[in-house]
Amino acid sequence: MTEQLTIVKVGGKIVEAPDTLSRLLADFAAIEGKKLLVHGGGRSATQLAAKLGIETKMVDGRRITDDAMLDVVTMVYGGLVNKRIVAGLQATGVNALGVTGADMDVIRSVKRPVKTIDYGWVGDVSRVDGDALSRLIDSGVVPVVAPLTHDGHGHILNTNADTMAGATASALARHYSVRLVFCFEKEGVLLDENDDSTAIAHLDRNRYADLKAKGIVAGGMIPKLDNAFATIDAGVAEVVITKASNLNDLTRGTHIS
Amino acid sequence: MTEQLTIVKVGGKIVEAPDTLSRLLADFAAIEGKKLLVHGGGRSATQLAAKLGIETKMVDGRRITDDAMLDVVTMVYGGLVNKRIVAGLQATGVNALGVTGADMDVIRSVKRPVKTIDYGWVGDVSRVDGDALSRLIDSGVVPVVAPLTHDGHGHILNTNADTMAGATASALARHYSVRLVFCFEKEGVLLDENDDSTAIAHLDRNRYADLKAKGIVAGGMIPKLDNAFATIDAGVAEVVITKASNLNDLTRGTHIS
Repeated sequence: MTEQLTIVKVGGKIVEAPDTLSRLLADFAAIEGKKLLVHGGGRSATQLAAKLGIETKMVDGRRITDDAMLDVVTMVYGGLVNKRIVAGLQATGVNALGVTGADMDVIRSVKRPVKTIDYGWVGDVSRVDGDALSRLIDSGVVPVVAPLTHDGHGHILNTNADTMAGATASALARHYSVRLVFCFEKEGVLLDENDDSTAIAHLDRNRYADLKAKGIVAGGMIPKLDNAFATIDAGVAEVVITKASNLNDLTRGTHIS
Repeated sequence: MTEQLTIVKVGGKIVEAPDTLSRLLADFAAIEGKKLLVHGGGRSATQLAAKLGIETKMVDGRRITDDAMLDVVTMVYGGLVNKRIVAGLQATGVNALGVTGADMDVIRSVKRPVKTIDYGWVGDVSRVDGDALSRLIDSGVVPVVAPLTHDGHGHILNTNADTMAGATASALARHYSVRLVFCFEKEGVLLDENDDSTAIAHLDRNRYADLKAKGIVAGGMIPKLDNAFATIDAGVAEVVITKASNLNDLTRGTHIS
């Protein structure tokens, strides 16, 4: 039987406030078996940029990353947020190792080509080294992945954390039975977006097509769910979309397979 | 025969300027065999702190590290400087992994007790996990160590890079024949501090005592050399004190054994 690996992706909001961070660390530490954490940190990056007089420009939710902004995200994602999580997990007995894609060359990307928009130092994931990550995981290490990659030519690239979590889960599906957990603000995928009690417990491709056609699933949920189904196609056993505060009970939320 | 491991410590000045950094990366990449890099980053931390309106206070060359300064050094050492080096080394084919002491719990420290001075979040190294580091090194990984440790209770601690290099070299002396290279501004230990051509090629304990008694070795060189001889006592094969620009020829500089 293939061993289970739980990959959790949490956004910046959760890891940036001391109270939600400490709950996240306790809940993540309590998850049994092998695991890996991918984190964001956008709010802290925007705050630091503002203090340094650097303007934050977003297009479709993606950060335009010029030289100055690259330094900001490298400091915030790779340093401040990542090391706080690592030190916090070590205090709970979890043998955390913070990595960007550059560390041990685990995740490479390609600088996004300029079409209508020049995103600057932003990378699209091109290769995840599942063998290197699984060797770490099998030795008892819990990787904590910051949303930064590299191009193999010495450049750090700002990279979307959801995409990195999906690509990492897909690469590790050859080694483990992977459960990929996306934490966001809502209980799950909701039938009524204002009512957390309407979360769909299980979503398959047919039901998703039906909900999309009816306009019940729309907007920002569509790329999130497309990404989830793509990882299922790549061999991931299950994707869970839920609130970070549900990490202590992963039977909750929306289960996609 | 025990395999050789070369540990190089470079200060902030070298790794912060693009031209000296790129030369350092090329020279470090060219060092044959197993290796590990420890880096500083103080100048960049002071610069970032100034931009954020945070005053830098130093006592005896050590940075007073309050909450705000801890965030600055965590961002600069663990993020900006460390990840630039890691991405740069990966581009030369060196399988670098950036770590602080918290990552994989490799270096623990104890918050410095308050006597006459409260250094704040500053740690004195208490334990280096040579087994964990040697497993990484034996698997082909080149650790790149930022001058940050942790206390095991969730706190990051700002830690002197020279001390970390010495403690790491001592811990790894059980696994390898360790050559520890301290890069600084001068050719080596000089008989005339204004003349790089007067570098002492070889220094043992007797000659050191003699040079100290004559006042030829004085000031900041004394703690540096005491630290070097302490690592020799701990089993390190050789300590080299030299210029970073000599990394391509380690027969130069002052050799301590």
